[in-house]
Amino acid sequence: MHNDTIVALATPSGSGAIAVIRLSGAEAISIADAHFKSVKSDKSLRKQKTHTIHLGHIVDATKTIDEVLVSVFKNPNSYTGEHVVEISCHGSSYIQQEIIQLFLRNGCRMATAGEFTLRAFLNGKLDLSQAEAVADLISSDNAASHQIAIQQMRGGFSSEIAKLREELLNFASLIELELDFAEEDVEFADRTQFKQLIERITFVLKRLIDSFAVGNVIKNGIPIAIVGEPNVGKSTLLNALLNEDRAIVSEIAGTTRDTIEDEISIGGIGFRFIDTAGIRETKDVVESIGIKRTFEKIEQSQVTIYLSPLIPKGGILNEETIRLVKLDVERIKNQFPLKPLIVVGNKKDLLSESEIAMIQNQIPNILLISAKEKIGIDDLTNQLLSFINTGALRNNETIVTNARHYDALNKAFEEIQKVKYGLESDLSGDLLAIDILQALYHFGEITGEITNDDLLGNIFANFCIGK
Amino acid sequence: MHNDTIVALATPSGSGAIAVIRLSGAEAISIADAHFKSVKSDKSLRKQKTHTIHLGHIVDATKTIDEVLVSVFKNPNSYTGEHVVEISCHGSSYIQQEIIQLFLRNGCRMATAGEFTLRAFLNGKLDLSQAEAVADLISSDNAASHQIAIQQMRGGFSSEIAKLREELLNFASLIELELDFAEEDVEFADRTQFKQLIERITFVLKRLIDSFAVGNVIKNGIPIAIVGEPNVGKSTLLNALLNEDRAIVSEIAGTTRDTIEDEISIGGIGFRFIDTAGIRETKDVVESIGIKRTFEKIEQSQVTIYLSPLIPKGGILNEETIRLVKLDVERIKNQFPLKPLIVVGNKKDLLSESEIAMIQNQIPNILLISAKEKIGIDDLTNQLLSFINTGALRNNETIVTNARHYDALNKAFEEIQKVKYGLESDLSGDLLAIDILQALYHFGEITGEITNDDLLGNIFANFCIGK
Repeated sequence: MHNDTIVALATPSGSGAIAVIRLSGAEAISIADAHFKSVKSDKSLRKQKTHTIHLGHIVDATKTIDEVLVSVFKNPNSYTGEHVVEISCHGSSYIQQEIIQLFLRNGCRMATAGEFTLRAFLNGKLDLSQAEAVADLISSDNAASHQIAIQQMRGGFSSEIAKLREELLNFASLIELELDFAEEDVEFADRTQFKQLIERITFVLKRLIDSFAVGNVIKNGIPIAIVGEPNVGKSTLLNALLNEDRAIVSEIAGTTRDTIEDEISIGGIGFRFIDTAGIRETKDVVESIGIKRTFEKIEQSQVTIYLSPLIPKGGILNEETIRLVKLDVERIKNQFPLKPLIVVGNKKDLLSESEIAMIQNQIPNILLISAKEKIGIDDLTNQLLSFINTGALRNNETIVTNARHYDALNKAFEEIQKVKYGLESDLSGDLLAIDILQALYHFGEITGEITNDDLLGNIFANFCIGK
Repeated sequence: MHNDTIVALATPSGSGAIAVIRLSGAEAISIADAHFKSVKSDKSLRKQKTHTIHLGHIVDATKTIDEVLVSVFKNPNSYTGEHVVEISCHGSSYIQQEIIQLFLRNGCRMATAGEFTLRAFLNGKLDLSQAEAVADLISSDNAASHQIAIQQMRGGFSSEIAKLREELLNFASLIELELDFAEEDVEFADRTQFKQLIERITFVLKRLIDSFAVGNVIKNGIPIAIVGEPNVGKSTLLNALLNEDRAIVSEIAGTTRDTIEDEISIGGIGFRFIDTAGIRETKDVVESIGIKRTFEKIEQSQVTIYLSPLIPKGGILNEETIRLVKLDVERIKNQFPLKPLIVVGNKKDLLSESEIAMIQNQIPNILLISAKEKIGIDDLTNQLLSFINTGALRNNETIVTNARHYDALNKAFEEIQKVKYGLESDLSGDLLAIDILQALYHFGEITGEITNDDLLGNIFANFCIGK
């Protein structure tokens, strides 16, 4: 099944200075060699050392397709563990296609999504959670998700799991041993030590499971609902936040046609700002639908920012505006008592000191800023970051970002609780062993000791072709 | 000016399996080395041989940015002729930016468009016409433009020019020698042989200049106007042409908002099909504007296809339809007597044999096809190709595609004509020499012996960054 030689474009499609085409398999070097003419006469790729680069031409019979650099990697010293050839050609889509077609006609098969990494996994170059981290790494677009992915790819997560698994396996074999000597009624596995181990495993599992809450939002961006009337300065605020960090703003289509989400990296963490209409009471039906949508967006968000200009358009600060802001804030708090809410007052630059004092008196905890003059933006970003538990990130602790791992960890946790209960209630060794084996099974699912074709298919289908 | 070390992304931007970041300059290897941690302990890039690849991590102080493969190329054995390092990293935009930023902070400068190739030119790795061919090669999107670009990049064009230049230079020095011995009235340069050389140069220059007509359209795609009423089956015809060749159709916005151009590769040559409205007389003002536009499109095209369904919608063949088709054809021929016109009748599958005979009798040279049933499509593509002089392409002759080269060749041709006239009218050696030097100057412009910063700036500004 995985003995043939595969080929794919490894660089993004489209035009660029160069493109890289990758071949992997037993015949990778000989297939490439048959269509490679070195600038040095009669230089065969097959005779070259691993990790060397060769200048020459890719030729189809007498036709020269391109001048290229060919990199040779020899089994097992390659990404996949097989022979690998990487062809660095000129970045024209036409040339890319011509070269790939040439190899497809001459013994190669088109690689499926993630097949290079799948082969690396099957050949033991990386375990399953490391392989999954490769896809996470490629899709990482901020410092936090990148840090988690690279730690996972380098084996941080796997080694933590492997350590627990090994200790548990150790006890499991002692228990199994007891079963062999069942008639003699001996205890090889010290129950006190075993209980301590189970406590430790419980603790680590709980930490890993809990880390998913932050891991998941870091991977997908932390959703922040911005509530405010259309002309309240929401886009000025987004730009101000953006400039603070010189990060990338991208407009991505939301789940509904009328929602625009802006993704901004603050302090290395991705935030998705979800623009909403205001929540002011109105008799207009269309507006009422808008309010319903706003509440839905708040529901989906991690933190809500309520943005008010305080000063009505063209007017001056008055009691009525403040009364309406207080009403809005109350409504949000009543609806979402547990959701973090930041009440922001914009256009601080237009307020006098006595006005500021009055507002702060009337609306406690209001954060006064000026998006236009970039006043108070630091305070806002600090408040935003304070709601995210980045402690684990700072301490380089393992953070779970993958729903599959989260699921397996939860199942392992359940089994460990059964073991714990079994130990407390002096369950017999053979019954204990079953629960331990189940926990071991779920540990194995994460790193890929336990696997099946469906699972692998699901995981690698999310990769891009060429990786 | 060109002593510093430059860095740029060499692969297309966006996400992919891998991305390649390229450094070039005296410090390329040492700058990369300072931020590279080999998986083998204490392996320094500086001590590695040229054309070797090394696995390791790019690190910024204690932070690991990515696991990468680093290729080392040592001066002068590299693309630019300088030390070059290529870093193959995971294809996340975030990682690409982090690595490039790291090098920008540590001694590199961002490369300008085409700067790697500019350095290759300045370091004598390729001449100017070869450097220009690199950009052409990257933008080539069909077999013909690709073939011309790769021939030019491999020096085919340069060597043809260099040969002429050398022979001319030879005679120029003999003439100069005569000037040194002016008082003795000797002729070192055999005037008969010189006339023969000038004839030969004239012939070659004329061939090269003429080749630009085909070279230019091959490079930019051959514009074909399709004239026909909106529901005449134009898109079905385009799809039929497309399926013949399994080439790529792309919709590119035309010069006016209402024009859509489809680019199709037929027989390895790119054709740009320009959709137009019909030209039928009407009292409607909007329609009249449409007719004016149609004539403009025909004017801009190389070949016109007039497409008529013959059978009106839901009806049967009648004399009136044929009369209208004949009127249309007459109008186009009157307006554009020299422009190749292919008159195509669609829906051949719905016609009886006697009807076919009648039509062919009434409208000589009509090509009857069925776009839907794919009848006669081969005949149409053959007719299209027959209008393009692909002889030079088939014979691997040099074809000029570059307007700058065309301009220099024309100027050289002018000067050579002056030399010819001077020889015929026994012009004195010193005056002859001036014209010869002018011709030599224009030859030198093509290959880059004669150049200036403005010219180089213009040429390389058209490159992408990273090449």
